[in-house]
Amino acid sequence: MDSFPVTTRRHHEMVDITRQVSRIIAESKVIEGMAVVYSPHTTAGIAINEHCDPDVVHDALLWMERQVPRIQPGFRHGEGNSDSHIKAIMTGASATLIVHKGAPVLGTWQGIFFCEFDGPRTRTVHVQVLGEKAE
Amino acid sequence: MDSFPVTTRRHHEMVDITRQVSRIIAESKVIEGMAVVYSPHTTAGIAINEHCDPDVVHDALLWMERQVPRIQPGFRHGEGNSDSHIKAIMTGASATLIVHKGAPVLGTWQGIFFCEFDGPRTRTVHVQVLGEKAE
Amino acid sequence: MDSFPVTTRRHHEMVDITRQVSRIIAESKVIEGMAVVYSPHTTAGIAINEHCDPDVVHDALLWMERQVPRIQPGFRHGEGNSDSHIKAIMTGASATLIVHKGAPVLGTWQGIFFCEFDGPRTRTVHVQVLGEKAE
Repeated sequence: MDSFPVTTRRHHEMVDITRQVSRIIAESKVIEGMAVVYSPHTTAGIAINEHCDPDVVHDALLWMERQVPRIQPGFRHGEGNSDSHIKAIMTGASATLIVHKGAPVLGTWQGIFFCEFDGPRTRTVHVQVLGEKAE
Repeated sequence: MDSFPVTTRRHHEMVDITRQVSRIIAESKVIEGMAVVYSPHTTAGIAINEHCDPDVVHDALLWMERQVPRIQPGFRHGEGNSDSHIKAIMTGASATLIVHKGAPVLGTWQGIFFCEFDGPRTRTVHVQVLGEKAE
Repeated sequence: MDSFPVTTRRHHEMVDITRQVSRIIAESKVIEGMAVVYSPHTTAGIAINEHCDPDVVHDALLWMERQVPRIQPGFRHGEGNSDSHIKAIMTGASATLIVHKGAPVLGTWQGIFFCEFDGPRTRTVHVQVLGEKAE
């Protein structure tokens, strides 16, 4: 397993971590296999989507903030950040990638994002790579 | 593959299954690898989130019930539980964990939940662990 | 890794790909392990849910279209399909399956779906299988 830090700068933010994940996969020497990208946080998740046009991320975060308002009747959690937990459940704590020819298989427009829903903070991402290594 | 039953007691419920999953991983003898926690049901899912304060789960379920009302104009499914299926799609049928030093990698506040969206029932959870075993 | 094409016929559509995925798993000769089913697209995802009654899929797509309207105040993405990206984030780009006795472990009612959110198009699905092979 390998890990790296992510420093987020806003309350809601999707940080492109494609480069860091790809490097860990390359260094693992795994040629054919899988990789799990994992967020050990309960108010942040991992997502895969378009990373070329930042407007896509803008719109996705806007929708999520509208869909899960911070203050809602009946909410009990004392920290007041249940919306952040709910968004983390929606995106999921991890993404599973296919590793092929020593690299993650990503579509032309796809990137890997760390999704911060309760920042700014310094966070951690774990990556585990499994499969057949080069001889 | 290993499996265990989960008995749910309410219509919507998130049951903490961290202990059962951790034991299966320990018994697998896998030291470095991955684990898939899988729900073979179409009205239940698996999620990872805060398992220390039960109010987080309360708020997440409250949001989901509001977001996906049981009765909606245009719904066709004869069993009348399309909302349960939709919530299962939202959380996902599985969670993928990193196994490191013989244990699942979980953040300080993270637990693994079986998410019941059409209970109470007796359900099943499957766990598959893959990776390098201790010699 | 193995891949196959999926031709979608509608703007929003969930296409049952259980047969194709099961065949790739069978051909991999893996007896115990995992499989990742992956969509390399940013406006399509992978989901596991009921594939016996098509009304479930109908209701799920209806809910998603209502939940994420195509036109929303504040949306910036020039292509005008941010709703498709958001739905892809919600379902996720992949599903991870358990492979047991040479086949994917699926519940009685479960099937694997390619979720098109910006069709009709010709798309691609990748499948990677990892684990112990038959001798």
